[in-house]
Amino acid sequence: MARFTLNILGCGSAKPTPQHLPACQVLDFRDKLYMIDCGEGAQHTFAQMHLRPSRLNHVFISHLHGDHFLGLLGLLSSMTLMGKEGEVVVHTFADGARIIGDMMNYIDRHRSYELRFNIIKVGHEVIYEDNALRVSTLPLKHSVPAVGFLFEEKGKERHLRGDMADFHGIPAWQRAAVKGGADFVKPDGTVIPNNFLTTAPDPPVRYAYCSDTMPSERVIPLIEGVDWLYHEATYDSTRADKARQYCHSTAAQAAEVARRAQAKHLIIGHYSARYDTPELLLREAQAIFPATIAAAERQRLDLLR
Amino acid sequence: MARFTLNILGCGSAKPTPQHLPACQVLDFRDKLYMIDCGEGAQHTFAQMHLRPSRLNHVFISHLHGDHFLGLLGLLSSMTLMGKEGEVVVHTFADGARIIGDMMNYIDRHRSYELRFNIIKVGHEVIYEDNALRVSTLPLKHSVPAVGFLFEEKGKERHLRGDMADFHGIPAWQRAAVKGGADFVKPDGTVIPNNFLTTAPDPPVRYAYCSDTMPSERVIPLIEGVDWLYHEATYDSTRADKARQYCHSTAAQAAEVARRAQAKHLIIGHYSARYDTPELLLREAQAIFPATIAAAERQRLDLLR
Repeated sequence: MARFTLNILGCGSAKPTPQHLPACQVLDFRDKLYMIDCGEGAQHTFAQMHLRPSRLNHVFISHLHGDHFLGLLGLLSSMTLMGKEGEVVVHTFADGARIIGDMMNYIDRHRSYELRFNIIKVGHEVIYEDNALRVSTLPLKHSVPAVGFLFEEKGKERHLRGDMADFHGIPAWQRAAVKGGADFVKPDGTVIPNNFLTTAPDPPVRYAYCSDTMPSERVIPLIEGVDWLYHEATYDSTRADKARQYCHSTAAQAAEVARRAQAKHLIIGHYSARYDTPELLLREAQAIFPATIAAAERQRLDLLR
Repeated sequence: MARFTLNILGCGSAKPTPQHLPACQVLDFRDKLYMIDCGEGAQHTFAQMHLRPSRLNHVFISHLHGDHFLGLLGLLSSMTLMGKEGEVVVHTFADGARIIGDMMNYIDRHRSYELRFNIIKVGHEVIYEDNALRVSTLPLKHSVPAVGFLFEEKGKERHLRGDMADFHGIPAWQRAAVKGGADFVKPDGTVIPNNFLTTAPDPPVRYAYCSDTMPSERVIPLIEGVDWLYHEATYDSTRADKARQYCHSTAAQAAEVARRAQAKHLIIGHYSARYDTPELLLREAQAIFPATIAAAERQRLDLLR
């Protein structure tokens, strides 16, 4: 079974601290890496975690605050030094394409790969799709335009029942079609319906990334039933005013979103610099949504269902 | 006596390694901090070394390769979060003022301090001066326009001879003038020449930063007799071709510059990512110029004469 592995490269917020790095995650799925946000220093942690630039072709930027994208400039420059080939697509707002593009055209003129921007907007739209994965935007509520990202596994094969395949004598070259849902036609013309031959595929894994944002009513139905939700939890409950003022969430609010969306697991992060450890935030979230874990740098999570 | 303290925040080159951070130094002199280059992640190390943004008002950027300035974007943004007041002057080429200025105007619109650019050119010119310090550019030879920086202590007071001051009865309020070089006129009109009353001041400390560059003939007379020279030493001697190709220096070439300029001390850095330790480079430099030390991250050097 293909696995979604989520690498946490940074889970701090804007103010630098000795404990945390700014936002960056890398989703590892079927030999491809998908980067979500890219705070300063991300390329360093990327190398430390033995992630390979050759496998990275898509970067998703949630919004244009420095702590969510400044690391991209160094990462993209270094990829030329490392001889990266092919294409890198940065999914970002039009302003991001302009400011990142201008800078990259200046500092990395002789790029070894093609850099392309896919312009996204605040909303809920499919922005990337291949045989195995679909990525859509989630409209967030922050002090500047911001989106979350929903990663959905797709096109999983049905399970072929070995006993039935043997009994009906399905040749090897026809088994892929049957796994894809086709009926089997025997040499004598008898049709064996697919549901006699296969069982339902594993349900696809879904992962939603929501940072930076206030708790948003609009997002809840869009992420209903996700297996894993990363939701920012910048403050504890005594600082709900601050959260509102800066368009962030408290840990309790993050947990409330997870509960109402019927998520299976919640990961909190984007901790304010005032917290030396995320313990208090984790406790507040778990009181509402027990299946909560606290993100940490260099954490590697298998996003099983 | 006021001291020059040099903080090394990064001494690696462009390719990221687990050992090194990209170029950044902070000169600490008379309660002010002067930053020289600002590679990605510099703000992190700046905080780790307990350097305070409130004391930082000048940043000198040698050239516009990403590993020498990308950290400035995060550092300048964070200064607003930390409520920095007053002014920050970035000394850089016109292109730097444009690309850094555009980015900062986008990501840090509500700056808490004034950000100013002082446009510099490749050459040898005084670009900053106050009562205690003079900074001039040094013309370097690199693949893009690049300058080094010469920091010179200035305006040191002469030493007042206590015995003579007492003998001639110099009142306290006139002593500063005598230390500044004035003769002393006694109440009866007798003039005591300054050289009877004072001895020469300590010679000013001079520090030169030369990175990135090939060894340059033009620089040698400009840094003659410097107390401390930081010179890049990207490669060892077996890679002299590579050094020439990429407009860098070998450790031996750096040492040769120090020897010919009659520097008192040499610091090498900007090590290529291929070296796990700077030992080989240090050995090659010391063979030519024994008073060489190898820069390291978080090193703090008192630049005594």
